[in-house]
Amino acid sequence: MSAPDPTPLPVTPPDAPAPAPDDDDHLPTHGVADHSATRQAREQQVGQRPGTLIVREGALTPRLFLISYSTDHVVEQEYPHYDQLLAYFRAHPELRHWIDVRGYNDLALMQRLQDDFRIHPLQMEDVLGDYQRAKVEESEDGLFMVSRMTEFTRLLDINDDQLSIFTGPNYVLTFQDDYEDCLDAVRQRLRSSRSSIRRRSSLYLAYALTDVVLDHYYPTMAAIGDYLEVLEERIFQGRSDRRVLNRILHIKKDIVRFRRLVYPERDKIAEILRLPDEEIPEEIKVFFRDCYDHAIQALDLAESYRETVSSLIDLYMSDQSNRANEVMKVLTIISSIFIPLSFVVGLYGMNFQREGPDGRINHLNMPELYSPWGYVGVLSFMLVVVIGQLTFFYRKGWLSRR
Amino acid sequence: MSAPDPTPLPVTPPDAPAPAPDDDDHLPTHGVADHSATRQAREQQVGQRPGTLIVREGALTPRLFLISYSTDHVVEQEYPHYDQLLAYFRAHPELRHWIDVRGYNDLALMQRLQDDFRIHPLQMEDVLGDYQRAKVEESEDGLFMVSRMTEFTRLLDINDDQLSIFTGPNYVLTFQDDYEDCLDAVRQRLRSSRSSIRRRSSLYLAYALTDVVLDHYYPTMAAIGDYLEVLEERIFQGRSDRRVLNRILHIKKDIVRFRRLVYPERDKIAEILRLPDEEIPEEIKVFFRDCYDHAIQALDLAESYRETVSSLIDLYMSDQSNRANEVMKVLTIISSIFIPLSFVVGLYGMNFQREGPDGRINHLNMPELYSPWGYVGVLSFMLVVVIGQLTFFYRKGWLSRR
Amino acid sequence: MSAPDPTPLPVTPPDAPAPAPDDDDHLPTHGVADHSATRQAREQQVGQRPGTLIVREGALTPRLFLISYSTDHVVEQEYPHYDQLLAYFRAHPELRHWIDVRGYNDLALMQRLQDDFRIHPLQMEDVLGDYQRAKVEESEDGLFMVSRMTEFTRLLDINDDQLSIFTGPNYVLTFQDDYEDCLDAVRQRLRSSRSSIRRRSSLYLAYALTDVVLDHYYPTMAAIGDYLEVLEERIFQGRSDRRVLNRILHIKKDIVRFRRLVYPERDKIAEILRLPDEEIPEEIKVFFRDCYDHAIQALDLAESYRETVSSLIDLYMSDQSNRANEVMKVLTIISSIFIPLSFVVGLYGMNFQREGPDGRINHLNMPELYSPWGYVGVLSFMLVVVIGQLTFFYRKGWLSRR
Amino acid sequence: MSAPDPTPLPVTPPDAPAPAPDDDDHLPTHGVADHSATRQAREQQVGQRPGTLIVREGALTPRLFLISYSTDHVVEQEYPHYDQLLAYFRAHPELRHWIDVRGYNDLALMQRLQDDFRIHPLQMEDVLGDYQRAKVEESEDGLFMVSRMTEFTRLLDINDDQLSIFTGPNYVLTFQDDYEDCLDAVRQRLRSSRSSIRRRSSLYLAYALTDVVLDHYYPTMAAIGDYLEVLEERIFQGRSDRRVLNRILHIKKDIVRFRRLVYPERDKIAEILRLPDEEIPEEIKVFFRDCYDHAIQALDLAESYRETVSSLIDLYMSDQSNRANEVMKVLTIISSIFIPLSFVVGLYGMNFQREGPDGRINHLNMPELYSPWGYVGVLSFMLVVVIGQLTFFYRKGWLSRR
Amino acid sequence: MSAPDPTPLPVTPPDAPAPAPDDDDHLPTHGVADHSATRQAREQQVGQRPGTLIVREGALTPRLFLISYSTDHVVEQEYPHYDQLLAYFRAHPELRHWIDVRGYNDLALMQRLQDDFRIHPLQMEDVLGDYQRAKVEESEDGLFMVSRMTEFTRLLDINDDQLSIFTGPNYVLTFQDDYEDCLDAVRQRLRSSRSSIRRRSSLYLAYALTDVVLDHYYPTMAAIGDYLEVLEERIFQGRSDRRVLNRILHIKKDIVRFRRLVYPERDKIAEILRLPDEEIPEEIKVFFRDCYDHAIQALDLAESYRETVSSLIDLYMSDQSNRANEVMKVLTIISSIFIPLSFVVGLYGMNFQREGPDGRINHLNMPELYSPWGYVGVLSFMLVVVIGQLTFFYRKGWLSRR
Repeated sequence: MSAPDPTPLPVTPPDAPAPAPDDDDHLPTHGVADHSATRQAREQQVGQRPGTLIVREGALTPRLFLISYSTDHVVEQEYPHYDQLLAYFRAHPELRHWIDVRGYNDLALMQRLQDDFRIHPLQMEDVLGDYQRAKVEESEDGLFMVSRMTEFTRLLDINDDQLSIFTGPNYVLTFQDDYEDCLDAVRQRLRSSRSSIRRRSSLYLAYALTDVVLDHYYPTMAAIGDYLEVLEERIFQGRSDRRVLNRILHIKKDIVRFRRLVYPERDKIAEILRLPDEEIPEEIKVFFRDCYDHAIQALDLAESYRETVSSLIDLYMSDQSNRANEVMKVLTIISSIFIPLSFVVGLYGMNFQREGPDGRINHLNMPELYSPWGYVGVLSFMLVVVIGQLTFFYRKGWLSRR
Repeated sequence: MSAPDPTPLPVTPPDAPAPAPDDDDHLPTHGVADHSATRQAREQQVGQRPGTLIVREGALTPRLFLISYSTDHVVEQEYPHYDQLLAYFRAHPELRHWIDVRGYNDLALMQRLQDDFRIHPLQMEDVLGDYQRAKVEESEDGLFMVSRMTEFTRLLDINDDQLSIFTGPNYVLTFQDDYEDCLDAVRQRLRSSRSSIRRRSSLYLAYALTDVVLDHYYPTMAAIGDYLEVLEERIFQGRSDRRVLNRILHIKKDIVRFRRLVYPERDKIAEILRLPDEEIPEEIKVFFRDCYDHAIQALDLAESYRETVSSLIDLYMSDQSNRANEVMKVLTIISSIFIPLSFVVGLYGMNFQREGPDGRINHLNMPELYSPWGYVGVLSFMLVVVIGQLTFFYRKGWLSRR
Repeated sequence: MSAPDPTPLPVTPPDAPAPAPDDDDHLPTHGVADHSATRQAREQQVGQRPGTLIVREGALTPRLFLISYSTDHVVEQEYPHYDQLLAYFRAHPELRHWIDVRGYNDLALMQRLQDDFRIHPLQMEDVLGDYQRAKVEESEDGLFMVSRMTEFTRLLDINDDQLSIFTGPNYVLTFQDDYEDCLDAVRQRLRSSRSSIRRRSSLYLAYALTDVVLDHYYPTMAAIGDYLEVLEERIFQGRSDRRVLNRILHIKKDIVRFRRLVYPERDKIAEILRLPDEEIPEEIKVFFRDCYDHAIQALDLAESYRETVSSLIDLYMSDQSNRANEVMKVLTIISSIFIPLSFVVGLYGMNFQREGPDGRINHLNMPELYSPWGYVGVLSFMLVVVIGQLTFFYRKGWLSRR
Repeated sequence: MSAPDPTPLPVTPPDAPAPAPDDDDHLPTHGVADHSATRQAREQQVGQRPGTLIVREGALTPRLFLISYSTDHVVEQEYPHYDQLLAYFRAHPELRHWIDVRGYNDLALMQRLQDDFRIHPLQMEDVLGDYQRAKVEESEDGLFMVSRMTEFTRLLDINDDQLSIFTGPNYVLTFQDDYEDCLDAVRQRLRSSRSSIRRRSSLYLAYALTDVVLDHYYPTMAAIGDYLEVLEERIFQGRSDRRVLNRILHIKKDIVRFRRLVYPERDKIAEILRLPDEEIPEEIKVFFRDCYDHAIQALDLAESYRETVSSLIDLYMSDQSNRANEVMKVLTIISSIFIPLSFVVGLYGMNFQREGPDGRINHLNMPELYSPWGYVGVLSFMLVVVIGQLTFFYRKGWLSRR
Repeated sequence: MSAPDPTPLPVTPPDAPAPAPDDDDHLPTHGVADHSATRQAREQQVGQRPGTLIVREGALTPRLFLISYSTDHVVEQEYPHYDQLLAYFRAHPELRHWIDVRGYNDLALMQRLQDDFRIHPLQMEDVLGDYQRAKVEESEDGLFMVSRMTEFTRLLDINDDQLSIFTGPNYVLTFQDDYEDCLDAVRQRLRSSRSSIRRRSSLYLAYALTDVVLDHYYPTMAAIGDYLEVLEERIFQGRSDRRVLNRILHIKKDIVRFRRLVYPERDKIAEILRLPDEEIPEEIKVFFRDCYDHAIQALDLAESYRETVSSLIDLYMSDQSNRANEVMKVLTIISSIFIPLSFVVGLYGMNFQREGPDGRINHLNMPELYSPWGYVGVLSFMLVVVIGQLTFFYRKGWLSRR
């Protein structure tokens, strides 16, 4: 039976219902080890011909979105058929286009996209594999970038989805295996005629997409930071049990994972900055430089959370040993007081006989028992002993709470 | 109930009232996790168009200061209106000017400054965001530098504010979101006609500002060092409780944070030193080289404090286990002495009958009880046992204090 | 006698029977230290003339396989005699050939291969030594690459075998000391006329072999990951004994070993990517670039498993100390309840006499004993004490399971 | 009361009286935290104009020494007045001169030296600040080097003093704030006509000074090594108390500090080796290369001492827990033996009545008490129990010393 | 008194008698700290003129060996006088010579060697100092290389001796301060007319010497590996006492030392590989490249042993805490069973009187004592309690061995 637990451990990931902190039967089991889709995806591929298109099990049916824009113009539509989209795209070379493919589960369509947009088979494999670290490569018509979008789930995990971006002279082609994403802010800005995206090249749109992905690292980190504070407060209130340790280690795993996601992101941007100006003009690079600062700051924050986690583990361990100390103090105080007293009362429970078998009085055999003040004297003596011991323990500070 | 605590934990940050070491209800809760303004600021920006000017919530109303100087001349004034300042600035191209903007809370003014001083929108965003790591970039008219000014608060936290510096041919434009700052030493030197700042270019003023910020890292570190000594003394006096661990981990967090602030500062200065001589002449670089040494030394000191913290944690943990040992020794000594004695007195409390039911005397049944020296003999035997045990414990060193 | 252990620790390496988790007498003994064949091989060589061909003890009798292929043609055969193979190879310069030597135990044959394919003696020594880190070197006719093929055994060890690859204008010559290998996927693809290996140069075959070796790192890591989850679940279920720690440390050793295998692999591929285009044409490099990503991802995964292992050790240690706490709580609760009660009953076992020797009634000597309510009163008092103590322990949370 | 402590912890720094190992009231308090003069010096400077000459509080009155030498000639003298020294120096351009300034406390003199030897104000500030890391810079007439001279004090601290060296065409100008130094070996060699210093350029003298400073790192490290052995022996003899931990952590701090001193020294020499041959001719560089080896070896030794310290901490911690184990074993053995015996004797202290109130004999009520062999039987039974338990504990190895 | 210890800790260094594992009085004392000859040698040198030849105390009287060889010719002889050796060497410029000097204790001879072979004084100092890290330098006639030869002693220490190698056009001159060495394999090969050493330049001999030194690292590491396995088995058998920890830490020190020896060796070879082809022709470099692989593998092995050591320390610590748990479980089980029983028997030892002083029967005062089934009832009750407790402990798993 457990003492009532007034403050549950809340998590507040953006736009998510509160987590269920007491649902520990499931949560901790998946706490520390890593069930990443990455691993599973790789396993399916062992021995496969490189460049073979394989669609990950459980992938979504593709939906095709097209946003076509120019400085004073924007058209946004979902196309049920790829042919229509392609026709519109080809009919309007004067516009810039964002072709947004969500869901991979149509191999034929993927093959057509690969052919129409001259995508290298290995790059298409990276797109569909959905487990690629952030990177940038040159493609036939421009650049191929991979970003990883993070989300902090209510089970305290970091989900990450892949956003693959191909740039071309007048288009940006993105792939992701999710109908919902974090790119709505960019779509919103595209709709506004004041937006700089409308006025600039398609590379700027690619930048804007990269930037919005980076921006979403912050709510993830903020949720982790908030959760760490909740855990810390719990430890400070002395209510740290095993579950708290599980959670700390779980969050530590998230932070490690987050760093593994963001380090390649930083390296990717650094590589973009080193590309020759023909591939990325200087006026776009200045924006990526800003991204670079953001990536560094996200890593800084992750580093500092790691330190926090290690401090929390120190605190937890110290708490555990504190509590063992407390248990032992109770045992020691009670034993130290009552074991000597038990000896005293045992002493006067001995049966030494005042009268020897020969009827002689043995005056040395426990004369106290026959004194009229014997009992009171013993009680008083024991009281003095107890007071003495309590004084000793008080002086040692063992009677105080800590 | 707790033993009286004669030495409180004092902190002596420069110019701050003594901290309240017993006010632990609030302090530790904010001990290890990180409530940085940085994170909050970033969160507000998610999905924002890059380069959009947003003023952080809680920013101050701007105050405008202008110090105009030449070798033999200095004018210092606060302007209520930007137009007046700009007019004076434009009317005196023969002077050098330090335009000192404190407080950001006027978007229109910020926009005008951005236009008049040809600041890149992303750089203006860095200024207003107020959470930028130290860095240096080229700007339209010269350099854009960010420094972070630190302060050690009475709650044992490191506060850091951003100082943004733009240099131009004959001006230095600084931004900060605080009316009070650590730059008064520079202002004082500007007022003196003997000052080398008066005789040198505006880049030298930028250097002087950077240097004074670096100089203020030392009082911060000194306060941390002093506090570490107080904590150490407390542990050495054997008065280390949980609060001491909280404080150590709090200070550790401060040191980690400090390093995160100073590493970019060092890198910034290294980058300045690598700039071509047209941007920073060699005679200015020599001063920045001096700054570089200072930054390295500050990092050295921070490293050595980290080692100190880890030693203190070792000491604390060893203390805890020492104390558990002490508790257990008391238990062991008292139990080891009295449990055997209790057995002995229990032995002579047994009721074996001298007289069998048939009236025969069982001489083997506890004849000691009938001896006239029985009681005295048992007492003497027990005394011998106690002395033997005390000797044993003394030899083991368990009776000494440590 | 041990409590029944319902969930054994299963391992599921691909294509291996289930491990024997309770066969702990042998497994842990080989747990942490390293019996690597590498070391033994090196020892035999001390003081040997470099370049001396020595065959490792226990090497297999060589079997010779030849797959000759062109775009529209494939012949696959095992040759009992080297001369036949060589004759066929020399008679068909228009085909590309994969000469696949399995087993080293024929020094004369090895010498002939060295001469016929112009292999440097030191490289031949590397082949036969069978303990070479992954590397790439230039050879007389092309490149000399070493890969290490891993396998996760049912004794939870990582086995690694060496695959040595020599490339020439129209051949690939591979050596390995095992009849079974992980290259069947490549052989399968060679048999298919659609395969790109058939259409491309022998360097592409070398790439395909390297890639398939890299692909086999994933099942190894997956087996380790699965095993870590089993261990984690066991700890979470509170059934972590010494064997669990042994296993964790065993797996940690595997991970360390895996990293030592894969780091050189990554470096090897990086070096291949830096080779001039004459040695590796750009269109082959793009495939190796893909390999490089895979190697990085394998290392990433290994890193994250290391973190998992360290978290598991933390959990295990915390569990141990939790369990010690629990033992001590039981002791403390029982002692704290019964030691005072024993004192009370001992008190009323004292023999203070109501009647003095002179027959006077000592009313102060234990009058309780003569009260008709004495016994009931004492019992009630003791009940109150017990209830008070249980309340105290309940409030402290010591009666709850955690 | 403490057991007598036969072996005190001796320290044998070269030329120092033995330390006072029991004077722990003062030593440990300054044990781990860092009271470096560096910090204080920096604090005084906050906001100071760079290049302002400030003399550290407590600096010594300068004494001026001049050694003028050529291959066949040496003159050595202390000058009370700077003018005389300067006159002699200027009158003898054909000689090489070592101007040795000890003590800084005369600002006017420092200013004159700065002017006469064309020292850059920032470099003069570095000299007087006395807290500069080892470094090398170009100066007006040659090089400016800073070395740090170490000394291991009898309070187990590392003292370090700064030696600033300016080289010119025919002079070496050194500054230090101590009348005693470690450079006498060089002075001695200068007096010998066979010395290569006499035959070579002033740069060689600068090298000889640097080398002798490096040589003095070894006695410091040797003293630390000796002290570590004393501490180790103490732990091995089982006499490790808290003071031993304090000392270990103190020494650890020394080693950390030593590394912080020597790393810049190594970097300085590496930088000297990279200087162009016009500044340092190759025949001098070969000697500095030798210095470089020495610096590396000193760092190697420091690294290995760090490992030793960490092993000692492991040993100490293991000792502490061993001792707790030993305490608990004593408790367990004594309790396990006597608590069951107490139960047995308590059993026969029960008062069950043979005669019921109705006078009927209850033969089931403790018939043992009436057996003539009852007492002897119980004693024998208890003896058997004790022997059984002792055998059990012996088999467990709990009765052995470890 | 200690339990018999059936398996001693054996060490099997090559060609050494078995170590004395129980001779712990001496071994551990020198366990962790470092008595290196290096340090002593350096100390003697403080303040010495660089390049001064000093012979280490305890050096051996030199013995001079000459092996002169050409492709079809080999002469091997020990010369008692240097002049004879020199005469033969000078008379046969058509042969290649290996001049092998063992022992340094003849300053005049050393001086002559320095002059005749044009050795730089600093390099000669490195030779005689006998404490130089592995390195390579250019010398007057070729290269100067230092290798360190390791040996694993029966006291579990790593001994290392210095091998100094000077190469010239037709000679190799080696110095070492030991009559026995690990170079006999090279001598053996020289005697064989088939040896490639006979056919190649003197640089190849220098390579062969370097290689044989590297080869001898493997037996050292193998001995360490074997010893680690012995220690591991001991821990697994639950017989880990303090001595085992001492040994682990001793071996850890050896591994650290080994790495310190091999890192410079690797760097040395890397530097050789970077030398221009005029100094080392490409056909020799290919052999050194092989050495480089060996050095890397030795470091790999050392790294993996470090991990093993850290796992062993984890196991040891976990064992210690396991054992403390076991002790506490015994205490808890025995106390928990007998303390309540003692209470029960004490209860019925109370003296409440059935007859009040007024002769009235107090039926409430311990009526059980008068029941004919009282004693049997109490015994049965206690039996039930004991069975209940044993069931409880069994369910908790405390009765099983682990």
